[in-house]
Amino acid sequence: MTAQTNPSRTADISTIVERLQDMLASDLTATEALLTERAKSPVDVIPDLSGYIVSAGGKRLRPMITLAAAHACGGTNPGTHALATAVEFIHTATLLHDDVVDDSDLRRGKKAAKNVWGNNASILVGDFLFARAFTLMVETGSLEILRILSDASSVIAEGEVHQLAAASRTDLPTEEYLAIIEAKTAALFEAAAEAGALSAGPGGEPHAAALAAYGKNLGLAFQIIDDALDYGGTTSVIGKAVGDDFREGKSTLPVIIARRRGSSEDQDFWDRALNPEHQTEGDLAHAIYLIRSTGAAEATLVEARAYAELAKAALRSLPESPWTKALSDLADFCVSRAH
Amino acid sequence: MTAQTNPSRTADISTIVERLQDMLASDLTATEALLTERAKSPVDVIPDLSGYIVSAGGKRLRPMITLAAAHACGGTNPGTHALATAVEFIHTATLLHDDVVDDSDLRRGKKAAKNVWGNNASILVGDFLFARAFTLMVETGSLEILRILSDASSVIAEGEVHQLAAASRTDLPTEEYLAIIEAKTAALFEAAAEAGALSAGPGGEPHAAALAAYGKNLGLAFQIIDDALDYGGTTSVIGKAVGDDFREGKSTLPVIIARRRGSSEDQDFWDRALNPEHQTEGDLAHAIYLIRSTGAAEATLVEARAYAELAKAALRSLPESPWTKALSDLADFCVSRAH
Repeated sequence: MTAQTNPSRTADISTIVERLQDMLASDLTATEALLTERAKSPVDVIPDLSGYIVSAGGKRLRPMITLAAAHACGGTNPGTHALATAVEFIHTATLLHDDVVDDSDLRRGKKAAKNVWGNNASILVGDFLFARAFTLMVETGSLEILRILSDASSVIAEGEVHQLAAASRTDLPTEEYLAIIEAKTAALFEAAAEAGALSAGPGGEPHAAALAAYGKNLGLAFQIIDDALDYGGTTSVIGKAVGDDFREGKSTLPVIIARRRGSSEDQDFWDRALNPEHQTEGDLAHAIYLIRSTGAAEATLVEARAYAELAKAALRSLPESPWTKALSDLADFCVSRAH
Repeated sequence: MTAQTNPSRTADISTIVERLQDMLASDLTATEALLTERAKSPVDVIPDLSGYIVSAGGKRLRPMITLAAAHACGGTNPGTHALATAVEFIHTATLLHDDVVDDSDLRRGKKAAKNVWGNNASILVGDFLFARAFTLMVETGSLEILRILSDASSVIAEGEVHQLAAASRTDLPTEEYLAIIEAKTAALFEAAAEAGALSAGPGGEPHAAALAAYGKNLGLAFQIIDDALDYGGTTSVIGKAVGDDFREGKSTLPVIIARRRGSSEDQDFWDRALNPEHQTEGDLAHAIYLIRSTGAAEATLVEARAYAELAKAALRSLPESPWTKALSDLADFCVSRAH
């Protein structure tokens, strides 16, 4: 995570999301309205809790992918807005359940919802939003979209359980790490892009597979960067506490590479310190030191960049447009977060 | 909960479920196969945990309602089997999440899954089964069925959150109690019956509303009896620990009636003892005594019987058949569990 050296590129990068938000302004207004409208319930805790997390400043990356994918295939419609809302609800439901499972205290720079309303409300409101996501998808009138998102949802849960089973396994093979993040993160990016294309109508079908590949690779890049940031960002920038993964004993790519490249002493360190019960003060700082000194931080970025390039390459079969350009830029943005 | 006095009726009652199982033998075989097949995953914890709870001896009441409703409207087909499996998966997912939320240690007479695999696995496998339920429903090819079950799923979560918010509220109005159980329990019975009818094809449409009303009232009767059993059954009979609701401070109908009919001393008892933090030994025994001596146990059964009669009445608009007879008997069975 070296400092970005080209200031003009930094400026470009930071405006990518803003530019896309401008291009999608009316679509995002419709989606935001649905995010509020469809979380309504006579049971106050539900809109309160979901409003708290939904409005906590997420970038709406996944719904933006859905909307931009639809535009790249002919345009959005009310079904696309319902779908984009469903995608964000599914994402929000997984965040609520993740925070309970990981016992995380911070989310998007604020107290996790479970620390305000309790674990039980977080579990049940997650279930509610997940169910509402499917009601919204029914409104698209497309069984294919429902199939894509229900399949993705079971894959996400599979990835989460797989990650749980792999906790503290410092010898986790890179391939297994990639399988976990492909399931728990990339599957939703993939579904968001593919279903977005299909929501545009018949014009989307020829491009659905390419946009699925775009979404999957973007999701992989995004999660790898997220895992790198856990050892290098600052709380204010990434909105989650640095060292969360480490404290939970998650074997992520920076750790896997650092351990592989380390001395046998270093490996002993990882084997001990990645067990949450055996961590001592100073371990996180030493972990960050090892990740940097072995070049694991840089190697992790290289891996993320490779997936971002695959995402961009997948777009090349689509007719060029401001939308394919914006989606391509989004891949650069995802990687740039680590700089 | 007086002992059943008519031995021949007891014998009849106990064979109702067995008879329906015989009538549905080939449908249940297909459904059981799907329950195993669709819980498969390369992540071992998922089939292990879901197999544990799915095969823990549930009566398959909800899928049987779906299947029998379809037969009452012309017959079952592979879509009905997918739907029946989806209904049981949704039910199983809610059981897994409920056990975490309620911190229950027993389920269907066995250790709760969370006590074997932990809370986190129970949350995530619940999510997995919920997602798989929607994949199965896509296979019915009916957006209407998907709409019914996704709406029911959000209503269930609403009911659970409502119940959470109402915990320890000893002054809970009867109407609010009924709204909670209608959402958390009856909504799935209602959806199971209505969607079952629609799965039969065009012959189901004219009867879908009647079967929905049947399912809703059956679900209300079922839950009221369940709440009565919590103060009167035995662990081996009902497969859950007696007094669970009491220990969790749930305001259920027997408590609401007993408190309303009690002396001011009794009301003080309920107000103290229904707060889990202020319970002392002997409170459960005293609660059971009050529920019986005030006639609240009997009044609760009367209420359940009234809903069972409404369920049976709803069937009268359907053409009479062995299936409407079996569904009607099922309403009697639900109430008889409390004897």
